[in-house]
Formats: sequence, C-alpha cells, structure tokens
Amino acid sequence: MFRKIPCIRIDGSRRKPSECNAAEEMVLALFVNGRHTMTATVSPGGLREFAAGYLFTEQIIAGAGEIESIREETNRISVLTTNPFRTAGAKKTVLSGCGGSTSYIDTAKLPIIPPGFSLSAAAVTGFMEEAIPRATGRIHTAALADAGGIVTRAEDIGRHNALDRVIGHGVLSGVDFETTCALCSGVISSEMVRKCLAARIPVIASRADATTLAADIARKTGLCVIGCVSGGGMAVYANPERLNGSTPSPE
Amino acid sequence: MFRKIPCIRIDGSRRKPSECNAAEEMVLALFVNGRHTMTATVSPGGLREFAAGYLFTEQIIAGAGEIESIREETNRISVLTTNPFRTAGAKKTVLSGCGGSTSYIDTAKLPIIPPGFSLSAAAVTGFMEEAIPRATGRIHTAALADAGGIVTRAEDIGRHNALDRVIGHGVLSGVDFETTCALCSGVISSEMVRKCLAARIPVIASRADATTLAADIARKTGLCVIGCVSGGGMAVYANPERLNGSTPSPE
Repeated sequence: MFRKIPCIRIDGSRRKPSECNAAEEMVLALFVNGRHTMTATVSPGGLREFAAGYLFTEQIIAGAGEIESIREETNRISVLTTNPFRTAGAKKTVLSGCGGSTSYIDTAKLPIIPPGFSLSAAAVTGFMEEAIPRATGRIHTAALADAGGIVTRAEDIGRHNALDRVIGHGVLSGVDFETTCALCSGVISSEMVRKCLAARIPVIASRADATTLAADIARKTGLCVIGCVSGGGMAVYANPERLNGSTPSPE
Repeated sequence: MFRKIPCIRIDGSRRKPSECNAAEEMVLALFVNGRHTMTATVSPGGLREFAAGYLFTEQIIAGAGEIESIREETNRISVLTTNPFRTAGAKKTVLSGCGGSTSYIDTAKLPIIPPGFSLSAAAVTGFMEEAIPRATGRIHTAALADAGGIVTRAEDIGRHNALDRVIGHGVLSGVDFETTCALCSGVISSEMVRKCLAARIPVIASRADATTLAADIARKTGLCVIGCVSGGGMAVYANPERLNGSTPSPE
C-alpha cells in the first residue's frame, strides 16, 4: 500500500536527499459488459473486491450471482454481468424537484433498513480497536463486522473506495449484510450512507464524525450512524435504538 | 461550514443527549449550457468560485472570459459559456494504451510547467502556517499564495473541491497562476496534480504527503510537489529546483 520514493528533506536551511513512504495510487478503468463505466484512482490490490462492491453499491448488480466474470488487466478491470442491460447511470444522487437542504436527495427513493438489528456499544468499540487505526491523513481504512467479529478489512486512498472494497468482499463471499456493522476511519458522508443503504447494512461507525447531510438521510432511512468512536466513547447521530448496552444517564 | 446537530453521547455504560459539530454537506448539480455536467457533494457557500474552478481545471473553459453567466439556485448552479460546444467529457484521466504504473496517465498529453518560477522554503512555511490548519479529519483547506502573500483560502469536505474553489477564485479575479503556489491540508493525489497542471500552477504544498503517482506525474511535468510541511521542515517529492533558500547539507 506504501512505497519508498526519493525526496529531498528540508529542515530550516539544511537540505538533503532522503526517502519518503508514499501511498501507492493507480488509475483503474472499470468496464462493464464491454463499456467504460468509470475511472477511479485507487490503491493497488484487491481490485476484484473493489469492482464487485462498486457495482453492488451502485445497484448495477443485485449480488454475486449476477457477475458472470471479472477479468483483471493492467490498470483495467472488466466485468460481465448476467443482466447486460442494467447499466451504470448517473445514480449517484437521487435528485427531487423541491428545495431545502436534504430534499434534493429524495430519501423516499432510497432503501429503508427495517428495525430489528442492534448491537452493543462495547462491540462497536471492540471492532474499532481491532480493525481501524486512528486517521493518519494518508490512507483510509474500512471494515465489516458481524456477531463473529471482523469479517474483512481494506485500505484505500479514498474513503468511498475502502467501503466499496469491504462490501465487495461481502458480496463475493455471501455475507448477510443485514446483520453487519460497517466501520471506517474517515468522515461519514452522505455518499457513504447511500452505499450502506444500498447494501442494507444497518450500522456504520467511524473514528471521525458525520456530515449534517449524512445524519439527515440516515435518520429517515433507519441507518444507525455512530461517530467519534474512541476508547469507550462515541456519538450517535441517528437511530440510537440500534445500539444497546448503555443506559440513559440520570441527569 | 459546521452546524450543531443533536446526538446521543455514549461513554462506557452512560448515555445522554448532547450536540455535535457536524460539517455541513450539500448536493450540488452543475449544469453547463443547459446540460447536467456533474453532481458533487460539497460544503455550502462560495459556489460560484467552485463552479468556475471546476470548469477551468476540467479544461471546459480557458478563463473567466469564457463565462457568460453563472446562476445559483437551491442545490443547482448553471453556467453559460461562450463556447457551448466544448463540453464536459471523461477528461479526468488521460489513458494511453501501454502498461506500467504511470503510463496509463499519458503525461505527454498533460500541460508542462516551464522552468523559471521558484520561491523560498521559508515562504512555503509561512504560507502554510498562515492559511492551512493541521488536518482535523473533518474538513479540507486549500489556499493560493503569490509574492504578495495569501491570495485566497477555502474549505470543503472534499480535498479536490477545496482546490477547485481557490483556483476558481483565481480565475474570476484574474490571478496569474504562473507565479502562485497552491497549499492544502490533505494528501496530494494525482488528481490534484492534474488540476494544478491544468491551471499552470508551478508549486503545490501540503501538510500531508503525496501519493506515488502524484510524484511520478509531477516529476515529468515540471510541478514542484512539497509534502509534510510542518515547522521549518518539509519533504520535496518533485522538482526541488523551484525551492530556494536551502543549501545541501554537507553529508
């Protein structure tokens, strides 16, 4: 994920040749059924999982059963699906006509996560400590956990890519997303909320906080959003009923 | 840029209602000559600068003179250009045919920044201290500086957006980019290098480091890339000859 590259270190008036650890970044073109769907800059490795997760969270495939083949070449990954007519559109945001801060994302068109699944605050803390380092400003980490513990973990220079990678692993290995919790290192944005909803993941937690729009959309769609997880502390932005094991404080 | 939203704070077994400062995030649809060009999630405010910077770094306009009008509506910004036939294509990455880690970004098709402009390491440190806070994991900051000091500064939940905002300010106010330095808080990716090249900005510096691909492309195109700026220290990844005021250390 990192590679040593040459650099010149400057410290006040001193200058000398040195080396830096730089995050690796590659350009990846994704082709679906022969057509160019998108180009992303991603970290190398685990590209099958990334492609599967992206297609799933963009609702181009409904599951692993709709993937006929995935072929990797240099800087290119080509997927054939069993439904070649469902193509990648501009689905990233569902725009509705009226004004207001959240109404341009039409929450009525997003999947709703039904009540039912919950987990303990202690479990969230445990997953976070096990899988997600504190933000380094270099690379993002995401993970997926269920009752058995951490299912998978991935790093990427982009926070959406890292989330797509762990969801893609889940798609390819048949994870039941409805009983999982997604974990990540960076800010929870509306785009990450949308990806969890597409996958029917009921809880997302982060070392960092959430945006206003992420919290608004999550509240209306049943996704539990937890930020600032550190030690035994956390802040719940939406649907706290999914988090048990804590009692309301007396004051 | 931030708004207080309700949350539930959990600390061990205690749980109580509280408030969090969340970064504001809005959905913005950009229309160029009546056509939908892209939808981004951005921080609110300064949307004219964002739109102008995006169109300039995507090479849809060559300067402010090609903007006929910019109209802001709720969650939508519409630009008319004097050249309605130059439209937004999939220009984000210039893919060439052959393999290899960087060759898929065809540096021969990217602008080259000619030698000439340089500035002192002390100036870079001064600009950084004045304009760019250390990474908070919440929001990104970018700035543009020239011999007169900081020209403009912007924050956004996305690091590319923050860079587009300061470049857009420069486009609208007639800044001569060829004698400027871009500053930012987050990792310098290949996409940020590409944006600087499109604007002919000769130096980019960050509190964080650069990716391998960013360093590779910058080396071939004359852009000076400086990372890890802190105190009087920094690491130069590409084209250190643009940075004067330091002497090689004896060893």
